[in-house]
Amino acid sequence: MGGDAAHRPAGGDLGWGHRSRRRLNYLMYILWALLFAFLAVSLVRVFAPYACGSGIPEIKTILSGFIIRGYLGKWTLLIKTVTLVLVVSSGLSLGKEGPLVHVACCCGNFFSSLFSKYSKNEGKRREVLSAAAAAGVSVAFGAPIGGVLFSLEEVSYYFPLKTLWRSFFAALVAAFTLRSINPFGNSRLVLFYVEYHTPWYMAELFPFILLGVFGGLWGTLFIRCNIAWCRRRKTTKLGKYPVLEVIVVTAITAIIAYPNPYTRRSTSELISELFNDCGALESSQLCDYINDPNMTRPVDDIPDRPAGFGVYTAMWQLALALIFKIVITIFTFGMKIPSGLFIPSMAVGAMAGRMVGIGVEQLAYHHHDWIIFRNWCRPGADCVTPGLYAMVGAAACLGGVTRMTVSLVVIMFELTGGLEYIVPLMAAAVTSKWVADAFGKEGIYEAHIHLNGYPFLDVKDEFTHRTLATDVMRPRRGEPPLSVLTQDSMTVEDVETLIKETDYNGFPVVVSRDSERLIGFAQRRELILAIKNARQRQEGIVSNSIMYFTEEPPELPANSPHPLKLRRVLNLSPFTVTDHTPMETVVDIFRKLGLRQCLVTRSGRLLGIITKKDVLRHMAQMANQDPESIMFN
Amino acid sequence: MGGDAAHRPAGGDLGWGHRSRRRLNYLMYILWALLFAFLAVSLVRVFAPYACGSGIPEIKTILSGFIIRGYLGKWTLLIKTVTLVLVVSSGLSLGKEGPLVHVACCCGNFFSSLFSKYSKNEGKRREVLSAAAAAGVSVAFGAPIGGVLFSLEEVSYYFPLKTLWRSFFAALVAAFTLRSINPFGNSRLVLFYVEYHTPWYMAELFPFILLGVFGGLWGTLFIRCNIAWCRRRKTTKLGKYPVLEVIVVTAITAIIAYPNPYTRRSTSELISELFNDCGALESSQLCDYINDPNMTRPVDDIPDRPAGFGVYTAMWQLALALIFKIVITIFTFGMKIPSGLFIPSMAVGAMAGRMVGIGVEQLAYHHHDWIIFRNWCRPGADCVTPGLYAMVGAAACLGGVTRMTVSLVVIMFELTGGLEYIVPLMAAAVTSKWVADAFGKEGIYEAHIHLNGYPFLDVKDEFTHRTLATDVMRPRRGEPPLSVLTQDSMTVEDVETLIKETDYNGFPVVVSRDSERLIGFAQRRELILAIKNARQRQEGIVSNSIMYFTEEPPELPANSPHPLKLRRVLNLSPFTVTDHTPMETVVDIFRKLGLRQCLVTRSGRLLGIITKKDVLRHMAQMANQDPESIMFN
Repeated sequence: MGGDAAHRPAGGDLGWGHRSRRRLNYLMYILWALLFAFLAVSLVRVFAPYACGSGIPEIKTILSGFIIRGYLGKWTLLIKTVTLVLVVSSGLSLGKEGPLVHVACCCGNFFSSLFSKYSKNEGKRREVLSAAAAAGVSVAFGAPIGGVLFSLEEVSYYFPLKTLWRSFFAALVAAFTLRSINPFGNSRLVLFYVEYHTPWYMAELFPFILLGVFGGLWGTLFIRCNIAWCRRRKTTKLGKYPVLEVIVVTAITAIIAYPNPYTRRSTSELISELFNDCGALESSQLCDYINDPNMTRPVDDIPDRPAGFGVYTAMWQLALALIFKIVITIFTFGMKIPSGLFIPSMAVGAMAGRMVGIGVEQLAYHHHDWIIFRNWCRPGADCVTPGLYAMVGAAACLGGVTRMTVSLVVIMFELTGGLEYIVPLMAAAVTSKWVADAFGKEGIYEAHIHLNGYPFLDVKDEFTHRTLATDVMRPRRGEPPLSVLTQDSMTVEDVETLIKETDYNGFPVVVSRDSERLIGFAQRRELILAIKNARQRQEGIVSNSIMYFTEEPPELPANSPHPLKLRRVLNLSPFTVTDHTPMETVVDIFRKLGLRQCLVTRSGRLLGIITKKDVLRHMAQMANQDPESIMFN
Repeated sequence: MGGDAAHRPAGGDLGWGHRSRRRLNYLMYILWALLFAFLAVSLVRVFAPYACGSGIPEIKTILSGFIIRGYLGKWTLLIKTVTLVLVVSSGLSLGKEGPLVHVACCCGNFFSSLFSKYSKNEGKRREVLSAAAAAGVSVAFGAPIGGVLFSLEEVSYYFPLKTLWRSFFAALVAAFTLRSINPFGNSRLVLFYVEYHTPWYMAELFPFILLGVFGGLWGTLFIRCNIAWCRRRKTTKLGKYPVLEVIVVTAITAIIAYPNPYTRRSTSELISELFNDCGALESSQLCDYINDPNMTRPVDDIPDRPAGFGVYTAMWQLALALIFKIVITIFTFGMKIPSGLFIPSMAVGAMAGRMVGIGVEQLAYHHHDWIIFRNWCRPGADCVTPGLYAMVGAAACLGGVTRMTVSLVVIMFELTGGLEYIVPLMAAAVTSKWVADAFGKEGIYEAHIHLNGYPFLDVKDEFTHRTLATDVMRPRRGEPPLSVLTQDSMTVEDVETLIKETDYNGFPVVVSRDSERLIGFAQRRELILAIKNARQRQEGIVSNSIMYFTEEPPELPANSPHPLKLRRVLNLSPFTVTDHTPMETVVDIFRKLGLRQCLVTRSGRLLGIITKKDVLRHMAQMANQDPESIMFN
C-alpha cells in the first residue's frame, strides 16, 4: 500500500477538491483492505485451515518428531501462498517471513514425497524440511546465511552438520535464483541497504543497550499479551467468529493507519526509511531539522514544505505510529490468516530506535561540551547516525520476541549490509535476550507451542532435578500393571482383546508373566496388521491359536490349533533404562535420540514404561507449573 | 616482516652502494628469521611440547570426550603465546588463527579451573572450551559471528543451543575488547576491508566455480602431501631433529622469499593487497596496466617506475610466489612450532584468484565483443574486479583445506565486508567442498586426528552398514569371557587380582556367574580407591573379606571376616543395548550421548561390552580401511 503520497504537508489550507479526493482515497484504502482481508480469511477457512498463522511453532513441533497430518500438504501450500499476498496487501500489521518458511517447508515436503528415499524415512524427510526452512528465510529476506542459522537456532530440533551443509546449499540456490530474478532491480540481495558515513563511538553503547532493554521489554509484553489474547480466543466464544475478527481488526488497522504517513505505507518501506541516513533521506520529514550552525544543508530548497523543524511533527507521528503498532500487532498475530512477526517487530524497534537516535543527536548538537560528547563530537559535525539506532532497535525487538542471537545478528547484517556495526547489534541482542529471559524463558514460538499443547520437548531447557526414572515411569504405585505380551503363551484372541481395550502405541514382550524378563517391543500398528494378514492368508489360524515371538514354536499339547509366529514384528532392541537412571539422563536421551518411549528395567526385568508425554508432564511438574495445563491434542 | 621497500624496480642499473645495501638487507632478513625460528622451536621443545601445531585437531578430540593431560595447561598457554609471535615474525608460511584458538582454549580451561561448577564437570568444562574457541577466532580475525560458527562447524563436538548462545556472548566480549584496543587504528574490526565499485555478473560465476575447483584440488593436494610428510616424520629418523628441521625450513623460506616482493612481505599484507581494487592500489604493480583506451589513469605520474605493463612482471612474480607458497606450506604445517593454516591457504587462493581475475579482465578488455562480455562489459569500462576473484579464490582454498561451509562464508564477510558477494563466495565454497570431498572426506584437522590416532568418532560420517551390536561386542567367539564382578561372592583379593591383571576402565557387576544378570557397572578408579580406603580405615577388612554390591550383606558362614559394602561405587544405570541392536543405532548413541562404553545384554543377561575403540575399529573395518592403521595412543 506504499507509494501513496506520504509526504503531504501536515496541516495547511486545502481546497475542497483536494480534501474530497483525500477522503475518497481514505475510503478506498479501507475498502480495499477489507476486501483483501475478507478474501484471505475466507480462503483459509474454506480450503486450508492450516494455512493460518506463521507456521513456525508447528514446524518446530513437526521437526521434533510429532506428526500433524496435512500441515505440509499441497492445499496448505497453495492457499498460504495466495492468501499471504492478500493479507500483506491489506495493510495489516504482519510480515511475510514466517509464512514463507511454512510455504518453503510445504514445498520441501512435496518434493520429498516424490523420492522414496525421503518419503519412507521420517528422519531424512525432516532433514529436507530443515533445509527448506533455510531456503524460506533466504528468499524472504535475501539472507542466505541468516536463513541457515535461523533454521539451526529457531526452527530445527536436530541439526547435524550434514543438515547444515545441505541447508547451506539450499540457501545458495535460493539466493542465486533470487539474484537472477532481481526483484528489487538493483542487483542487490540486501533488502534495507544502508550506507552510513560515520562510525559509532563507545559512548553510544549506552543508548544501544537501552534499546536492547526496550526490545526485551517489548518482547515480554508482546508474548504475554498475545498469548493471553489467543487463550481467550481459544476458550471463549470469540474463537467462533474468525472471519468477523479479521474484518474488525482490518477495519481498525485501516482507519487508524491511513491518516498517519508512517503507518499508511508498507511496513518494509517504513523500516527502510527509518534505517537510512539523513544523507540519503533529504526529502524526509525525519531529517527536517537544522544541525549545522552554518546552514549548509539546503532545507529551504525542498519545495512545498516550510523550512526546518518539521521533525517535531515527524516525532509525534512516529510516537503515535509506535503505540499503534505495538497494540495492533498483539491482536493481529494469531488470527486465522497467514501472519509473520519479523516485520512488525522490526518496525516497532526501528521507530523506537529512530526516536532515541534523533534524541541523542539533538543532545549531542546542543550539548557538545558535555564530557560524554566532547571526545568525539565536534560542534557542527554529524556525529550521531539516527538510522543506526533504528537498526539496533529493530534487532533488539526482534530478539526480544524470538530470542534469536546469532541468526538475528547475521540476518540484520544481510538485511542492511552494516557489517561494521556488529558490536552494537550484538550488544543489543544480548541485552534484549537477557531482559526478556528474566521475565520468562519462552520465545513467541515456544509460547504458541505450549498454548496449542503440542508435545514438544524443548532442547533449550535444562533439567537439573534429582528425580529418577522410577519416579516417572508408569504404572505408578497402585495403578494396574503394565499391559504386556508374553513370548509364547497368549492366544490371538487375548492379544486382540488387549488391543481393543487399550490405546497404547505398542506393547513390551516378556518371557512370561512370572519372570517379566523383557525380550522386545511390538508396535500396535504392526501387530494389528500381522494378525489381520495371518487370519486372512494363513491356514489354521483361529482365535485360539497361540502367538509366539520366539525363534522356535513352543511345545503345544496335541490338537492345539496351528500357532502364529510373530517374531517379524518384534523389535529386539527396544530402548531401555534402569529404574535408577537419573531423569536428567533420561531427558537427555529422549531429546538427543528423539525417542517416543523408553522401557524401564531392573536386571532385565520389566518394571514400566516412560513415554514422551510422561517426560513432558514430569518436567512441567518439576518446573512447578500446573501439569494439567499441558494438554495433548 | 612487511614494509620492506617492496616496490623496487625489477631490474635496472643500480650503483654498488645500493646493491651491497640490498645484500645486507637480504642477509639480515635471513638471520632474523633463523633467530626467531630457533628461539621458538627451542622454547617449545624445552617448556611445552604441546604448544606446537595448530592445536585444533587436539581440541576437537578433547571436546569429543578424550582427555589429553596438560594440553590446555598454563605452560602451553604461555609458551604458545610467546612462540606464536616469534614464528609469525620469522616469515614462515604459517598463520596465527589456529594457535590463537588453542591459546583461547587454554585460557578457558584456566578460568574454568577456578570455579568448581566447571572444574568438576567435564561436560560444562567442554562448553566453556567451545565458547573459548569462538572467542579465539573472534580475536584472530575480528570475526565474532564467524568465530561462533567456526566453533560450531569445525571445533565442537556437541553444540547445544545453550553453547551457541554462550559462545555468542564470549565472541561479543572479545570483539568489544578488540574494538576498544583498536589494533588497526581504523575503528574497524574488518581485517581486509574492501570496497569494490562494480557489482558482479552472472557470467563471472564460471571463473568463480573454476576457482572453487582449484580450491578443492589444492585442499586435496595439501592434505595428502602434508599427511604423507608428517607420517614420514613420525616413522623415520627425521622426527628426531625437530630443531634442525625448523632451521632448515626457515632458511629455505627466507632465502627464496626475500627476492620476490610478494613473498617478502607479511602474508596478511599480501592478502590485503590482492583483495583490493585497483582504485585503492594505484601504486601497486598489480594494477600497472592500461585498460582504458582514453588513458585516464595516470600511470605515468607514479614516480620511479616505467609506465604500463609492469603487470607482466607482477604476474610472473605472483606465479612463482604461488608455487613457492604451495610447496613450502606443505612442509611447514606440522613442524614443532605453533602454526596455523588459514592465512597460508587464503594466500594461495588469493594469488591464484588475482591471476585469474587479471586474466578475465584482459580478456574482457580485448574481446568485449564476445557474447559472454557483450551484455555487461562496455569498451573501456572497468567491468571486472580482480580483487573479487582473489577473495573468492581465498575462500575456495580455505574451504578445500578445512571443508568449512557456513563459517567460511561468514568469516570471509567479516574479513572483507563484502556482503554483496555472497553468491560468488557460496558458489566457490560449495564447489570447493564438492571437489575436495570427491577425493577424500577428511579435512586437514580430521586427517591429523587420524594420523595421531586419537579416538575421535566423527559426527560427519554416516554409518549405514547393517551389522549388529553382537558383531562388534567383545568377547568375540573363542575369546576368554568378559571380566565381571559378582554382586556378593568375590573376595577383596579376587577383585584386586582382577584389577592387577587387566587394564579395563571398569567392570560390569552381575548377580552371579551362572545367571550373568547385569545389575550395574563399577569404575576401575573408584573401585581401587574404595578398597584402599576400606583397608586403611575400616576395621576387619582383610583379603578374604567378601565384597558385596547389594543393599543388604549376604548371609555368610560364621567366622567369616567382615564383609565390605561397595554399593556406593556401583553405577546402577549403565548404558545397555541388546545384542540385536543395529550398529547404526549404536554409533548414533555413542555420538549423541558421548559414551565411552556400552554393555550388551539379552533379556538382562550380560553378553559383552562395546567400547568407543571397538566402534571406531568396526567403522574403519566397514570402510574397508586397514583397522590397524588406527592406533590408540
